[in-house]
Amino acid sequence: MRKMVLSILVDNTAGVLSRVSGLFSRRGYSIESITSGETENPHLSRITVVVNGDDIILEQIRNQLNKLEDVVEITELHNDDSVFRQLVLVKVAAKDSERQQVIAVADIFRAKIVDVAKESLMIELTGNQAKIDAFIKLLDGFKILEIVRTGITGLPRGGAGDIEDYIS
Amino acid sequence: MRKMVLSILVDNTAGVLSRVSGLFSRRGYSIESITSGETENPHLSRITVVVNGDDIILEQIRNQLNKLEDVVEITELHNDDSVFRQLVLVKVAAKDSERQQVIAVADIFRAKIVDVAKESLMIELTGNQAKIDAFIKLLDGFKILEIVRTGITGLPRGGAGDIEDYIS
Repeated sequence: MRKMVLSILVDNTAGVLSRVSGLFSRRGYSIESITSGETENPHLSRITVVVNGDDIILEQIRNQLNKLEDVVEITELHNDDSVFRQLVLVKVAAKDSERQQVIAVADIFRAKIVDVAKESLMIELTGNQAKIDAFIKLLDGFKILEIVRTGITGLPRGGAGDIEDYIS
Repeated sequence: MRKMVLSILVDNTAGVLSRVSGLFSRRGYSIESITSGETENPHLSRITVVVNGDDIILEQIRNQLNKLEDVVEITELHNDDSVFRQLVLVKVAAKDSERQQVIAVADIFRAKIVDVAKESLMIELTGNQAKIDAFIKLLDGFKILEIVRTGITGLPRGGAGDIEDYIS
């Protein structure tokens, strides 16, 4: 079993998101996350699905997806030649004295403070899974009130053997 | 008809994402986007769904969702007291001469360059819908190769009448 990230290009029709996710559930495949949105072509959406499975399961999923009229293209995104990102919003309890400490943690991760209230701060962070996990771990001493995540999205890198390998 | 953002707290069980999205599709409600991820409690996930509907539809959806065993809490997030964010990755064709121009557009929006290849750049941007739309519009003179979006996620702001209103 391994984590697979599928990038599925679909016609932007009503209900397509439910048809794709419904296909996974009816076949008993557990979706870890699903994200979607319009692409550069307003008639097409790109759905990114993270599932746990093996190559046999992947082949079955591909075949099932290909039978859906809405599906234009299915690509598996691999770790070594893709950029994966997730967005997380974290609301942390912080009164006057703690506020600077929380902001210091956010600064280390180049996270943004997106809301300040009397007794809490909201922080926006983007990154890969490892970065987000490390950030939340570092907030361990504070009281986390709420966390919300988008799930993973990604795109294949621009080209092989280029300078992109030096940029996270 | 208006756009509604529902924040649904669910037990982190296998298939819950498909059960929730399946409910929308079976009832004929068109999902504009769905995002999800673990919360501060590893047993709970928070699913953010954007749907187009009216108050009667919202009430029907609430009732249907409440019947699902996995659903712990349903909250509607309103524009005036919530932070909404989306992450987008944009791959733009850019050879030597165009690269600086694309980077300049990214800088205006405080977007990050996350991949550089010989003939393309990949840019990560987070923001609300209006900011992302404005960014993509400004890239109009360049050739956009691929766009992928997470869909909208959000959290209620920390408290009313606080200084958060002065921070975007």
